[in-house]
Amino acid sequence: MKSYVGIFLVLGALVATSLAASVDMQEIHSQNQLVGVSSAVKARDANLIDPNAMAKGKTGPEAEKNAQFWYDLAHEEIAKRLELPQMDKRKAKNVILFLGDGMSLSTVAAARIHKGQLKGNTGEEDALSFEKFPYTGLSRTYCSNAQVPDSACTATAYLCGVKTNIVALGITAAVTFNNCSGSEDPANQVDSIAAWAQAAGKATGIVTTTTLTHASPSGAYAKTTNRFFESDTDIITYGEGQNDPATCTDIATQLITQSPGKNFDVMLGGGIGKFLPNTVTDPFNKKGERSDGVNLLSRWQSLHPGGVLAYNRDQLLSVNASRITNLIGTFRSGVMSFNKLADPKEEPTLAEMTRKAIEVVSKCEEGYFLFVEGGLIDYGNHFNSPTHSLAETLQFEQAVQEALELTNPEETLIVVTSDHAHPLTISGYPGRGTPILGLNQDDTDVNGVKYATLNYAVGTEQYLDEHGQRIDLTDQIGAEDFIHPSYIHGLIGVHAGEDVGIFATGPQSHLFSGMMQQSTIPHLMAYSSCIGKGPTLCDKEEN
Amino acid sequence: MKSYVGIFLVLGALVATSLAASVDMQEIHSQNQLVGVSSAVKARDANLIDPNAMAKGKTGPEAEKNAQFWYDLAHEEIAKRLELPQMDKRKAKNVILFLGDGMSLSTVAAARIHKGQLKGNTGEEDALSFEKFPYTGLSRTYCSNAQVPDSACTATAYLCGVKTNIVALGITAAVTFNNCSGSEDPANQVDSIAAWAQAAGKATGIVTTTTLTHASPSGAYAKTTNRFFESDTDIITYGEGQNDPATCTDIATQLITQSPGKNFDVMLGGGIGKFLPNTVTDPFNKKGERSDGVNLLSRWQSLHPGGVLAYNRDQLLSVNASRITNLIGTFRSGVMSFNKLADPKEEPTLAEMTRKAIEVVSKCEEGYFLFVEGGLIDYGNHFNSPTHSLAETLQFEQAVQEALELTNPEETLIVVTSDHAHPLTISGYPGRGTPILGLNQDDTDVNGVKYATLNYAVGTEQYLDEHGQRIDLTDQIGAEDFIHPSYIHGLIGVHAGEDVGIFATGPQSHLFSGMMQQSTIPHLMAYSSCIGKGPTLCDKEEN
Repeated sequence: MKSYVGIFLVLGALVATSLAASVDMQEIHSQNQLVGVSSAVKARDANLIDPNAMAKGKTGPEAEKNAQFWYDLAHEEIAKRLELPQMDKRKAKNVILFLGDGMSLSTVAAARIHKGQLKGNTGEEDALSFEKFPYTGLSRTYCSNAQVPDSACTATAYLCGVKTNIVALGITAAVTFNNCSGSEDPANQVDSIAAWAQAAGKATGIVTTTTLTHASPSGAYAKTTNRFFESDTDIITYGEGQNDPATCTDIATQLITQSPGKNFDVMLGGGIGKFLPNTVTDPFNKKGERSDGVNLLSRWQSLHPGGVLAYNRDQLLSVNASRITNLIGTFRSGVMSFNKLADPKEEPTLAEMTRKAIEVVSKCEEGYFLFVEGGLIDYGNHFNSPTHSLAETLQFEQAVQEALELTNPEETLIVVTSDHAHPLTISGYPGRGTPILGLNQDDTDVNGVKYATLNYAVGTEQYLDEHGQRIDLTDQIGAEDFIHPSYIHGLIGVHAGEDVGIFATGPQSHLFSGMMQQSTIPHLMAYSSCIGKGPTLCDKEEN
Repeated sequence: MKSYVGIFLVLGALVATSLAASVDMQEIHSQNQLVGVSSAVKARDANLIDPNAMAKGKTGPEAEKNAQFWYDLAHEEIAKRLELPQMDKRKAKNVILFLGDGMSLSTVAAARIHKGQLKGNTGEEDALSFEKFPYTGLSRTYCSNAQVPDSACTATAYLCGVKTNIVALGITAAVTFNNCSGSEDPANQVDSIAAWAQAAGKATGIVTTTTLTHASPSGAYAKTTNRFFESDTDIITYGEGQNDPATCTDIATQLITQSPGKNFDVMLGGGIGKFLPNTVTDPFNKKGERSDGVNLLSRWQSLHPGGVLAYNRDQLLSVNASRITNLIGTFRSGVMSFNKLADPKEEPTLAEMTRKAIEVVSKCEEGYFLFVEGGLIDYGNHFNSPTHSLAETLQFEQAVQEALELTNPEETLIVVTSDHAHPLTISGYPGRGTPILGLNQDDTDVNGVKYATLNYAVGTEQYLDEHGQRIDLTDQIGAEDFIHPSYIHGLIGVHAGEDVGIFATGPQSHLFSGMMQQSTIPHLMAYSSCIGKGPTLCDKEEN
């Protein structure tokens, strides 16, 4: 072991780099990178008939299977913050939770640089809208049975205030994987902050660039052992023969027919296929996905005679919020398109959806709770495409900016966070202003070959030659469809386990500083807006 | 492009994993991993005669070369925070800045898990001492001419409050690389918070596990264009023939003979070689490194007749702080040893050094500023050894705990942060309690081969076979000397560019929330303790 110590003595400097003067971005586009993504997805579908395998064989501590464990922990974390000297006595009439799915802090930093570089600046000095918020915290994202979580157990944490098992939504960790009857037992179910808000007479809504039944928005209303049970057909596909859609309620049906989903004032996103029978063609010329013959959108319309449905951007923008009771907008059969690839006439931006949603919920005199997800940041990172994950992060920060401009900071608490990280890294010692989507112009590997500034731990493209040596990416990198390199050849990119950021502004936003369990977030929002069954700001007033 | 959009429609799930039930750590040790580190270091020394190459060809914006740019920015960031409602009127009599070098937030999360697992728990639920602090912020680490910084320009930011060029210390970005006369022009020099504290009559000190003249502690006192100018000999070695030690003052000489270094009440760490002539053998049986024949420790003793020198743990622990005026402890010729490899009888722990340093500086009735660095966290990550970077992080958090126990929270502001990140990732979907230093037992690559949970973007070991396929690490991983895998074959691991955490407790600690420039940190500490030339808490009292 002594030789290991000895190496310090010869170290004159720590870092190894090579010299390169130019920091111009390589703009040469390759034609055929899309093949990489498509074949990866095909490979996954072929190899992984059961993507739910990620949930099996994982167990967590017994004590954590009780929702009270998390409630107690959250209340402790709140109590600690309440001891801090503060003068902010403002109650949050409205709460908006913005969720950047898979928006690791490395994604935030890279997106900020990208934003500045799009303006022609060096970039590092720029700031996303929410980076200017007065308070920041750190959110610990692990789930009850997972060191690194998925978007379902994390949604249960930041929307229901309880950590649960991976791929589970709205239930405690007491329910085992694909045990539908367990998930339908009220003893195992936990309410979301959307339910708490409704109980207080507030308006509620969800906005997402994924499907309305995707893991993140589902955290606001669904109770299921498997996030993939989006439609009745999905229960057959992913239920391993143990689950019968006749007795197990899919997520889309829960959204339209059960509380709190059926009471949502507004729902905007993609995924119309989950609501339509396979005998019906949707506005995007695809068949519905449901096998049970139920048209859930017709059902919704009959439940909400004053409600309006929108299928494209024009329809959404023309909605006069003051003349409707409820609003559903579904703008794709499945998840919405990456903003850079979307037809801007057909699909609204996240900022446009956010504006319309705020118009609808702000009619409620009691205030509102609104959930807004930038869901494709995660998709971009899963596909090892910072081109898209950074562009989606910029769409997301514009939606936050829109909310800032539309709301009164004296009465609206805005919290921005992420559900989990991605193993995206910004590596080496690139010079100031180096194009963030290009090659690091200041460092090479031992063979003198430059490398990308942005790399992933796991992904589809390793860019190795037949001897296992990294190839020169000069001619490929910078193309919009370039797949960034990764070390481990996976079928698709994976999540990462470090903490994510919390950014807060408005009434009681000081409470969101410090490191906390992700499951504390909704309790803090409930405290600030005097809803839910836990401690609230208004308790003090009464005492 | 449409085909890219289309892949969403077939996505039933996002993530690809494979199933494995066991999460037991592989404890089989390999014999020969040290060869990897040693050969990497040798390769670097052979290829990189001039490690300073990292500083060349990099430029930053003109405006940022003026220290006032950063002062103005910091004062704006402070003003913003002062607008927030707060009742904390406590002045920070004492300030301790803890710096975890290269302690990325991924390192923090992994170390927390490791801490819990060493107790026999799953680990994720544990917390480092400073993770419990009430306020957290995010620090933006880029330097004036570098998107990803080194430990020198960042030390200038968090100690002098100015962003400068990579490898520069205590000067503005107006000075070009290796222009020593530029760095000695007072017009280009900037004072550190240690100087501000001394001007206010406070005690000051530095503690590090690296050398006393290493980049991070040097930020508290040195003014140099090149962090590698630690001794006069180093100026020849790294000065490219442009720099003459007769006219260019090395860092060790600055520490002993110039303000504010010569006034330090306590300095504890490694690196005695930088202070001794090459005609003298140090207590560790190595020759001194100086060519100028000067024994700087004798010089220091003559300047401080009541001062004491310590060379090992026993000598340090036996120092009675009340009976001495000043204290230098140097416990190795170069940087200190990784704690796991150190002889515990010879080298004190960081917590022990921190305790003694606090004993010395707390004698001052006006209060103190103390800088404490966990400098080998960075070394562990550079060597792709989380075994060491996590162990050093645990040593660091114990030093913070020691400070918490020794100080009065009503009058001592403690700030914990890092200088820059490392591209260390926690990847895949490992189950709860998976040993953090082992294989991810729940995921594999496309060939069915498991991978390590912890990987680096750049490093010495790729573990590929002759066809470029990743090999099975089962038999190697978990050994104390295992080098964790990386994608890009570098001579040594590199830094990363995302933000790092700030954790604060004590008087005015609420000011450290939100995202900020790294260069704002010392201004906030100065504000809180009423020192320096900028705005302070005491200004208000006077108005």
